[in-house]
Amino acid sequence: MTTLDDFTVQIHRYNRILVTIDSDDFISSKPAFEYACTTAKMYQIPLGIVSILETGDLNIFQTLSPDVLSQQRADVANLVDTYADKAREFGVLDVTPYVSEGKPGRTVVDQVIPEFKPDLLVVGSERKANANAIGSQASYMVRYAPCSVIVVRN
Amino acid sequence: MTTLDDFTVQIHRYNRILVTIDSDDFISSKPAFEYACTTAKMYQIPLGIVSILETGDLNIFQTLSPDVLSQQRADVANLVDTYADKAREFGVLDVTPYVSEGKPGRTVVDQVIPEFKPDLLVVGSERKANANAIGSQASYMVRYAPCSVIVVRN
Repeated sequence: MTTLDDFTVQIHRYNRILVTIDSDDFISSKPAFEYACTTAKMYQIPLGIVSILETGDLNIFQTLSPDVLSQQRADVANLVDTYADKAREFGVLDVTPYVSEGKPGRTVVDQVIPEFKPDLLVVGSERKANANAIGSQASYMVRYAPCSVIVVRN
Repeated sequence: MTTLDDFTVQIHRYNRILVTIDSDDFISSKPAFEYACTTAKMYQIPLGIVSILETGDLNIFQTLSPDVLSQQRADVANLVDTYADKAREFGVLDVTPYVSEGKPGRTVVDQVIPEFKPDLLVVGSERKANANAIGSQASYMVRYAPCSVIVVRN
């Protein structure tokens, strides 16, 4: 095993980036997305873009109504496609949009990461008054993702 | 305020990087340090390297003994200087070593960050058996740092 004394610094770079988009929070998603695009373009590596339809946010009426749910699904899919187009316009060559449903933290860790296999997950941070604290979903991802995670603050 | 529709992706890069070194954990510090050096070299930006002497880890005899404490201080200072030399050998031009004392999370957030003013904090993650969970000190920094934070996992 290498020890500090005989250690020579090696280049450390990432090969697959996944960025999470909060459909309700453009302000915190934007810098995270820009960081992910900048890094993916510089290294010419694949970028996954995921947004989670938070079905827990729907009330019982909405959940029972197929029209409301399918509209929500279409909205999130359009949103992710819009972000994917922006990434391609910026110069990222390999872009994959993902949409899933559930609790964002658990869904990203249990479903999207095993599928896309990023080595870096990029999340935004909710900005609350008088606090830099990150949201519970970002916190979950930092804790349980099997890869490196960057929390991007403005 | 910009909305998604009229949003054009801008380059997002960091200008000052601070990396934390756990003096007891070379294995988790190494990839974090390599990521920090790679990024600082690529962008030719300042790199701060900090290690915290965890005075809470000393027993009462050690705390009361000036010799033991001063030896510990010297050891941590040497360690950080060694890392600083490795960073310079790798090609980072502007390197600042820091040593402080206390609880690492709180000390980095309350003392070192206000002094060095990084826009990106780089921390390693402790690897525990059957868990990717990060340590409580890294978790504190992710939560309370006023800047972006990357948790680097191997």
